[in-house]
Amino acid sequence: MPVIQMNSNRILTLTSDFGFSDVYVGVMKGAIAQVNPSLTVIDITHEIPPQHLAAARFCLMDAYRYFPHGTVHVAVVDPGVGSNRRAIAIEFEHGFLVGPDNGIFSGILSQSPAIAAVELTHSQYWRTPQLSKTFHGRDIFAPVGAHLASGVPLRELGKAIDLATLLQLDLPQLIYTSTEIIGCIQYIDRFGNLVTNIPGSDVENQTWTVRLGERIVPGCQTYSNVSPREALALIGSHGWVEIAINCGNAQLQLQQHWGDRVEVVISER
Amino acid sequence: MPVIQMNSNRILTLTSDFGFSDVYVGVMKGAIAQVNPSLTVIDITHEIPPQHLAAARFCLMDAYRYFPHGTVHVAVVDPGVGSNRRAIAIEFEHGFLVGPDNGIFSGILSQSPAIAAVELTHSQYWRTPQLSKTFHGRDIFAPVGAHLASGVPLRELGKAIDLATLLQLDLPQLIYTSTEIIGCIQYIDRFGNLVTNIPGSDVENQTWTVRLGERIVPGCQTYSNVSPREALALIGSHGWVEIAINCGNAQLQLQQHWGDRVEVVISER
Amino acid sequence: MPVIQMNSNRILTLTSDFGFSDVYVGVMKGAIAQVNPSLTVIDITHEIPPQHLAAARFCLMDAYRYFPHGTVHVAVVDPGVGSNRRAIAIEFEHGFLVGPDNGIFSGILSQSPAIAAVELTHSQYWRTPQLSKTFHGRDIFAPVGAHLASGVPLRELGKAIDLATLLQLDLPQLIYTSTEIIGCIQYIDRFGNLVTNIPGSDVENQTWTVRLGERIVPGCQTYSNVSPREALALIGSHGWVEIAINCGNAQLQLQQHWGDRVEVVISER
Repeated sequence: MPVIQMNSNRILTLTSDFGFSDVYVGVMKGAIAQVNPSLTVIDITHEIPPQHLAAARFCLMDAYRYFPHGTVHVAVVDPGVGSNRRAIAIEFEHGFLVGPDNGIFSGILSQSPAIAAVELTHSQYWRTPQLSKTFHGRDIFAPVGAHLASGVPLRELGKAIDLATLLQLDLPQLIYTSTEIIGCIQYIDRFGNLVTNIPGSDVENQTWTVRLGERIVPGCQTYSNVSPREALALIGSHGWVEIAINCGNAQLQLQQHWGDRVEVVISER
Repeated sequence: MPVIQMNSNRILTLTSDFGFSDVYVGVMKGAIAQVNPSLTVIDITHEIPPQHLAAARFCLMDAYRYFPHGTVHVAVVDPGVGSNRRAIAIEFEHGFLVGPDNGIFSGILSQSPAIAAVELTHSQYWRTPQLSKTFHGRDIFAPVGAHLASGVPLRELGKAIDLATLLQLDLPQLIYTSTEIIGCIQYIDRFGNLVTNIPGSDVENQTWTVRLGERIVPGCQTYSNVSPREALALIGSHGWVEIAINCGNAQLQLQQHWGDRVEVVISER
Repeated sequence: MPVIQMNSNRILTLTSDFGFSDVYVGVMKGAIAQVNPSLTVIDITHEIPPQHLAAARFCLMDAYRYFPHGTVHVAVVDPGVGSNRRAIAIEFEHGFLVGPDNGIFSGILSQSPAIAAVELTHSQYWRTPQLSKTFHGRDIFAPVGAHLASGVPLRELGKAIDLATLLQLDLPQLIYTSTEIIGCIQYIDRFGNLVTNIPGSDVENQTWTVRLGERIVPGCQTYSNVSPREALALIGSHGWVEIAINCGNAQLQLQQHWGDRVEVVISER
């Protein structure tokens, strides 16, 4: 392989709900190496809760901007595998997305729209035309991602599809009143922190509180603004308004769930 | 290092029961980088249950065919470390195997026989001739695998050994009658799915059921052929007959164990 | 990028308490790839117990010597993030260290002293001058580590600091009497093995026992020197005197904790 081609390789990332206790992740990387052993593969996470598309949607949206321009993101949380859901690849401003057409990329595309998309119908880019019924990550998505990362143009991978037909998995729109912003919990991390869909920029440099059911939580700069075991809201490292317990687990202590309503109340600016 | 040699590097994989919470896996990769920092290392899995050779045997057999020709597979599930079990390297049609001589490679070799094998007696390819009593993964297997992946010939690594002396870890032979195939559970994945040692090709395009103790489970095409919480058998992504619960855990619900007897009954074809 | 520079890349390692269930580790690798996509990144561990500096200190000390000369070790266990703790980079004989100035590198430096250190004040080597309050791993440490690994000299990264001002996180000095060595438990691994801070070389080729509170544990060569479920002491793979239970968990069974006192009694040599 000429050096010039090696240097033109794109980064390829993997996101899935496979975990590390079985061989699935290793096997996807083997399938990538069969296409091009010189690619750099980075795991975003493989600990998405099983079939939890909303978690995968958030994690991809959270991570994509920290990768080089042109990176190929392969995502396999795929409850519809074996049904007639489409396998797709998408080009967008920052790079490429490869996975099932089930809304997993909706978060990314809500921030940076799709430029072009294809259905993965050209089996010469698959690992084998004889697909498994349950593991398209190995048989389609990983090898197609590897071809994209090696420089194969998107249009070669299958037939073009109308961007309007891409399946969406979107959260309710934020509601803005004169003093409130009404959103929801869009992600809960392993520490039990509640990440809302309200952008941190909406509360920056303001005095604000959060209403969660009957409870009022103060908007703070840092954890140390409240006593241990007390709830606070702050702009988290993800860039969203986040609700946490200082030295505690907000999900358990506040008994909140994915999608629960969150109201930010702006008291003055 | 000249470019030509970089491009000729083989992929090296790692499989172990070390988990990720200690530094063992990182240290093996450091020992590999000390030999050749330009190698590509892929984790198959490090979550083999501690010292569970049957699980390691299955995972390696399950994964090897998805890696490029010539890949070097280093496996360290090694209950006999510090005893007089041999350290070995094997050449087979698809690549190379490096690890303890305890049967861990028996599954791969049952599908693709060994061509040559050596005992790892040449300490110049070890990290140090002063071996730890408990961590040959770092001191022998990782560096020897790195040398193999960098192009050192197998015969340089130690004295040739008779292939008939390789320790076997084999499952009972399948028994075929006119209407039945009698096998066993050879692997249980983290979702509790029961993977048998009966090849999927034996039941393809037939009408079949599975007998597990007193219970009869229908042979199906997909999970959705049965109601949630019901048991089914199907050809899994591993290529073997597999017993699962739709939206459930077959290991817990059916109370099955590694090695338990499984009978496939073919009713018509 | 010319080939000559690619080949001169150093290995970069990552150690943190981020775990793998969120995207933090993947995002740090993205930030590294944005600086230099051809770097080789090795995870030492990301399963340090949350904010457990003593565990991180031990893991780094345990692992560094197994990496190539010049390796850049980035470590992010950072309870003081957002406070005025310094962000630093250190040069030492074996390579470079990048992380918070909180003593995380004290173990390494107790074995191989610092040669030079800088505070990371030059924001052109950060991912962005607009720092998150909670994730300097992504915004400072990963990109600065990537620049170091790509050949940027240490002095370019910020203002030099007096080595005497580096924060220390040191264990009590060992006490040697004519027949005893008094130390402590400095690490507990996931199997519950108790790793002391007493070097194995202090007991090699001697007859010795360990006193843990009221209990006496025999110094042994291997696990098989005692019956299953019995306690033993031996020189572990880390190179330290270690207390274990044959086929059991010493932490639980002996009810020991981080920092607990351990006495080695030498009876004859």
